[in-house]
Amino acid sequence: MAKINRNYLKLPGSYLFSTIGKKVREYAAAHPEAEIIRLGIGDVTQPLAPAVIAALHSAVEEMGQADTFRGYAPDLGYEFLRKAIADYDYGRIGCSISPEEIFVSDGAKCDCGNIQEIFDTDSRIAVCDPVYPVYVDSNVMAGRTGEYDADLQRFRDVIYMPCTEENGFAPEFPEEVPDLIYLCFPNNPTGAVITREALQGWVDYANKNGAVILYDAAYEAYISEENVPHSIYECDGAETCAIEFRSFSKTAGFTGLRLGYTVIPMALTLEGVRLHDLWARRHGTKYNGAPYIVQRAGEAIYSPEGRSQITGQIAYYMENAKLIREGLREAGYTASGGVNAPYIWMKTPDGLSSWEFFDFLLENANVVGTPGVGFGPHGEGYFRLTAFGSRENTLRAMERIRHL
Amino acid sequence: MAKINRNYLKLPGSYLFSTIGKKVREYAAAHPEAEIIRLGIGDVTQPLAPAVIAALHSAVEEMGQADTFRGYAPDLGYEFLRKAIADYDYGRIGCSISPEEIFVSDGAKCDCGNIQEIFDTDSRIAVCDPVYPVYVDSNVMAGRTGEYDADLQRFRDVIYMPCTEENGFAPEFPEEVPDLIYLCFPNNPTGAVITREALQGWVDYANKNGAVILYDAAYEAYISEENVPHSIYECDGAETCAIEFRSFSKTAGFTGLRLGYTVIPMALTLEGVRLHDLWARRHGTKYNGAPYIVQRAGEAIYSPEGRSQITGQIAYYMENAKLIREGLREAGYTASGGVNAPYIWMKTPDGLSSWEFFDFLLENANVVGTPGVGFGPHGEGYFRLTAFGSRENTLRAMERIRHL
Repeated sequence: MAKINRNYLKLPGSYLFSTIGKKVREYAAAHPEAEIIRLGIGDVTQPLAPAVIAALHSAVEEMGQADTFRGYAPDLGYEFLRKAIADYDYGRIGCSISPEEIFVSDGAKCDCGNIQEIFDTDSRIAVCDPVYPVYVDSNVMAGRTGEYDADLQRFRDVIYMPCTEENGFAPEFPEEVPDLIYLCFPNNPTGAVITREALQGWVDYANKNGAVILYDAAYEAYISEENVPHSIYECDGAETCAIEFRSFSKTAGFTGLRLGYTVIPMALTLEGVRLHDLWARRHGTKYNGAPYIVQRAGEAIYSPEGRSQITGQIAYYMENAKLIREGLREAGYTASGGVNAPYIWMKTPDGLSSWEFFDFLLENANVVGTPGVGFGPHGEGYFRLTAFGSRENTLRAMERIRHL
Repeated sequence: MAKINRNYLKLPGSYLFSTIGKKVREYAAAHPEAEIIRLGIGDVTQPLAPAVIAALHSAVEEMGQADTFRGYAPDLGYEFLRKAIADYDYGRIGCSISPEEIFVSDGAKCDCGNIQEIFDTDSRIAVCDPVYPVYVDSNVMAGRTGEYDADLQRFRDVIYMPCTEENGFAPEFPEEVPDLIYLCFPNNPTGAVITREALQGWVDYANKNGAVILYDAAYEAYISEENVPHSIYECDGAETCAIEFRSFSKTAGFTGLRLGYTVIPMALTLEGVRLHDLWARRHGTKYNGAPYIVQRAGEAIYSPEGRSQITGQIAYYMENAKLIREGLREAGYTASGGVNAPYIWMKTPDGLSSWEFFDFLLENANVVGTPGVGFGPHGEGYFRLTAFGSRENTLRAMERIRHL
């Protein structure tokens, strides 16, 4: 008699963004006249850069000719892309990462969700609170988190590291030493960053305790200030304790194109086994590579032309971030983030809960955001807005919020 | 102290096709003059159909314009594609599958590898022997298979169903009742098929015993004979016991484009839980959808023009299959398959082992095939050739084999 993986039943409700999507669809159906502005899910709105479009067309042409057609991609990704990544994203900032240490994939979400598989099921994980739900949910499914305590809104066996106004939304070393530490900087959802010195502290902590840091750097392209590290490999010793995830989704608007990568240094071993080998085995067994045409599109963002175009896109979104942050402050709200990240983290007004404010904003301003509590109990009383809308919609949303 | 998932260490060696790739690269490096013909891995060689190329170009254009740009795809895939699949792949043959029961993904390999996650880790799995390695390896990683017995070349806790010349390469009901039954027809690697009556027997067996059939129909487009089912849902009661996997890789040459889908009927429940809900939760948590442009490319194969073009591609490959099958027989070999499948399953000559024949063929004919034993112990003494080469290469390979 077949049985289900009962760990799935521990998950409270559906995936956060599926729930939001459903609520918005229902509201829209009931209010067909409402012009809803979506600043909730972190989805981009600007079209792909001309250099990316040109690369896609060109690669599509290759796929239509017998002599240039490409079938299965190499397990770890095409060399042309891995080399561009190693040179530009790492070599340029003085990090020694080789193409062989880079695994190309269809996105950082998939990699962040799947990486836990290569670790023992008894591993103790530590996450920030609030946190991107994928880190926790994927470990729930694997049976690493224990039961959900509905009162505490926490899984019993997860180590939560509160990120609050008091500590500047920066996690502190937990009392109990974790095996796996999920860190995300610039942070989703708070938009907070970490200094190079503070990140070095985490690297030292991990190396000292034999922990592995799973470092999500999906938003590094949005960093505007000095002394904010773009990669964890800027820290000494990170190559023996850290895996890094990167995404083309936010860097170059690839949310609908799907491309990301994971770095696992050859020097990162546990029990004498290279984690690189384990992930390569997983990649080879359960994955079949990102599409050739998409890998060519990814390569295009590293050309001078592509570079310039996506820098323009990021500047566009960061101008939105500024409009939101300053608009909120002018309207009397408390807001942070939005300087090195496309996310603005605001306090809900009048003691409203996150979901109450979600409903309030949807109904009274027709603006969709993300309830902070959806990212963890310490997100209660907070609300996330994203800078990924169009300028027009961002301006309209702020105008509506100002007049609430 | 972090620890690895030690189940990975039970896997003998690397993924089969990675090993073959490495051997071929080494041979090619040592013999740069050799014109190696690859009939090993099941990778297509014909370019994408013109209708697919046109759809790709058109979708790329959309991605370059703000008003038609698409970000994150719907969790389960775009409605336009799921509807085309439901209508054409199922409705046309009288199977009642709704678009809501279809999950679009980046390929059947990923889905076949990941599906085991939604089942209990104590599930007992049954696989054919020989078998596509992904079914077993993904369960090894999850800890469902026990230790590997190197003498028996088997995992201790897996139920193997031998598929041999004696039983016409058709599995028989195992003595011990499994929880999960992996079936693949038309079969990879043997090229064998199952009749509708025999498949109905498996469906009845699963329903009677509370087992779930994981049915890989990646090669259904190659079926040429009557009474060979294209879908398990042609059988009565399959909707309460079977999940079906389909691929665009072999149907339309999408190996480098990545598209597939999985069908989980709403009626399929275990312990009162719909498996559809569990897979939807996994999809939402660990996956972010196939690229929009690739989903449009998939839609294009259902247009009259696209249909006609991919039918032509399949006929092309099946002519290769016929050349290989008949060529081998004329040369005195015993070979089966290749009538309803792109694979030809041959006996190695002179009592050579599968790997001995692999080396012999690579060195003496510069032809790459796949050692049968790579698919399981009952594949020892067999060898798989694929029909996915170009006509010219297929003819040259057969010419060389004839002159061995």
